[in-house]
Amino acid sequence: MTRKHLVDTQFVKLFSEKSPFVFENGAILPEITVAYETYGKLNAAGDNAVLVIHALTGSAHAAYWNSPDEKDPGWWHNFIGDECPLDPKDYFIICPNLLSSCYGTSGPSSINPASGHRFGLDFPATTTRDMVNVQRALLKHLKIEHLFAVVGGSLGAMQVWQWMVQYPNFMDKALPIAGSAKGSPWMIALNEVARTAIYNDPAWPEGVPTQGLHTARMLGMITYRTHEQYSRRFARTRVDETPAQTVNFDNFFQVESYLHYQGDKLVKRFDAHSYVYLTKAMDFHDISRGFPSWSAALERIQARTLVLGISSDILYYPDELRQTVAELQQIGKNIKYDEIQSIYGHDAFLIEYDKLNPIVTDFLKS
Amino acid sequence: MTRKHLVDTQFVKLFSEKSPFVFENGAILPEITVAYETYGKLNAAGDNAVLVIHALTGSAHAAYWNSPDEKDPGWWHNFIGDECPLDPKDYFIICPNLLSSCYGTSGPSSINPASGHRFGLDFPATTTRDMVNVQRALLKHLKIEHLFAVVGGSLGAMQVWQWMVQYPNFMDKALPIAGSAKGSPWMIALNEVARTAIYNDPAWPEGVPTQGLHTARMLGMITYRTHEQYSRRFARTRVDETPAQTVNFDNFFQVESYLHYQGDKLVKRFDAHSYVYLTKAMDFHDISRGFPSWSAALERIQARTLVLGISSDILYYPDELRQTVAELQQIGKNIKYDEIQSIYGHDAFLIEYDKLNPIVTDFLKS
Repeated sequence: MTRKHLVDTQFVKLFSEKSPFVFENGAILPEITVAYETYGKLNAAGDNAVLVIHALTGSAHAAYWNSPDEKDPGWWHNFIGDECPLDPKDYFIICPNLLSSCYGTSGPSSINPASGHRFGLDFPATTTRDMVNVQRALLKHLKIEHLFAVVGGSLGAMQVWQWMVQYPNFMDKALPIAGSAKGSPWMIALNEVARTAIYNDPAWPEGVPTQGLHTARMLGMITYRTHEQYSRRFARTRVDETPAQTVNFDNFFQVESYLHYQGDKLVKRFDAHSYVYLTKAMDFHDISRGFPSWSAALERIQARTLVLGISSDILYYPDELRQTVAELQQIGKNIKYDEIQSIYGHDAFLIEYDKLNPIVTDFLKS
Repeated sequence: MTRKHLVDTQFVKLFSEKSPFVFENGAILPEITVAYETYGKLNAAGDNAVLVIHALTGSAHAAYWNSPDEKDPGWWHNFIGDECPLDPKDYFIICPNLLSSCYGTSGPSSINPASGHRFGLDFPATTTRDMVNVQRALLKHLKIEHLFAVVGGSLGAMQVWQWMVQYPNFMDKALPIAGSAKGSPWMIALNEVARTAIYNDPAWPEGVPTQGLHTARMLGMITYRTHEQYSRRFARTRVDETPAQTVNFDNFFQVESYLHYQGDKLVKRFDAHSYVYLTKAMDFHDISRGFPSWSAALERIQARTLVLGISSDILYYPDELRQTVAELQQIGKNIKYDEIQSIYGHDAFLIEYDKLNPIVTDFLKS
């Protein structure tokens, strides 16, 4: 048995009354707590730091184990570790929990010092720009003034794009995986259905809207995969095949049971307010906001960039990503597009390591 | 101005205490009311009858106007009418409202004579086989013992497939458009999310779960279209562009507003129980049920068949339809596949008449 590499999630309070955090929408908080994990060590030259940014329901716990008893390692364990593209022997890897998430970084489920209760909807609307600014402050705290690379998938990739325009000289390489430079109306539409399920829960917004979040997660789990993978995995199998093929509302198909199971699982570990805030951040996401134009934003980009799409992704369709890459290539930017061929859809970046890892290793080593 | 062709929706009570309707699951009802419309006339030879079968939220009102004051004509007006593929000068067209729908045919919103209240969940679980059997009884009442063609889109197409195996010699031609021979786990998954939104509404099952049905419809309106069409139509435009691009939960994107508008519209015209029953019928749908095997069911098919897919359909993916067609061709059946190239997705059969109509006219005339 392999020895379990242990890691502690760390917490730091950033900003102050005198130098508060200013949200993009003008709201101000005097203090932001950030939860983060690190793997590996900053080298003497200080040029091996890699920022890893997680997706919608992720956390700072990207790799290793938090305790010897923990069953599963961090969420990107097959991507960060020995012989992985992000090998802690080579890189100093930092993974912060996102602003407005619920795994230790400040967000709507944090206590509002002004009231002594959870912020809830009093927490300021959050954007990918806000998230990046909090990450920038964390790096400053860690005395990192330059990144070798910024890497993230999905909402994490959206923040990579935001980093690329917001702090264009801060990193050598950028790797947004299965995430776009601006939220598409398609993604906004799916997010609004998920939020509406939450808003319609009688427990929203004061209580714990478990049914609403459950429904939102069911929808999410569809959009993260594909019809082909569902067909192969579930076919038309029933939970109870005896008697076979009953016409009965209570005899569920396995795919239904799977979605309800996933809904139940998320409800136990995630906060509905965070779900609303982070999906809103996805919707607001547009790297051109705050700049005179879309092309002005693109012009800012300096990092050597690999945009990775997934052939079957129905949340961030490859054609969207290719389009932005083409625009950047046209103005002479050092950017390439590559695609993982997969039947897994959006989730491929958390599954298809055989395909993902060689591409990323090549990009980082080249 | 064109004269408005008028049509009355007709109603007939079928079955009796002595000869009741037996559902596939064994439940029995002594009487089934069917609402239907007809266009054109049965010819002397009795060989020009065409059955048109509607989709999830459709009705018997497929063409013409029910009154001079009615603003919009029936739902397939550009497909049924003068110079259309189904021209009432040539065909006697019958469109019944589906069993378990809420536009006049018996279903969960009908009054249960046993209780004097709406059936609600006491209405028997309904399948495409049940729907087809009720349609068969309606045709018998209309003295139609043979159909020239059976035509339908989406859930309507599923019933066309069911007709093809259940009464294989009853029609010359079959035209299932954007609908499959069995419900895919992908479609079941999407349906279960919609139903879960309805089930979670505090008004379910005794009251009127408007919020749940609203959410279900929002999701439906996404799956009926495509990311490309949403991008072209909505882009990232806000409902209120002043001030532009506000980071504010109350400043909606137009795509969100559109979905809520569609949700509100459906809630005013459709019954949540029918939504649950008809989506369950989609899930149960499998032409092999009741036959020894899938191939035994395929072997039964006799109609000359054109299966029409839509290139961008994400509810009934073309590859699914192509697969069934290939299997049928392999055993020598007279079946062809054709595809509408469209960015509209599943809804293309209600939009792309320039592409749809010539293909159908060719098939019916050939």
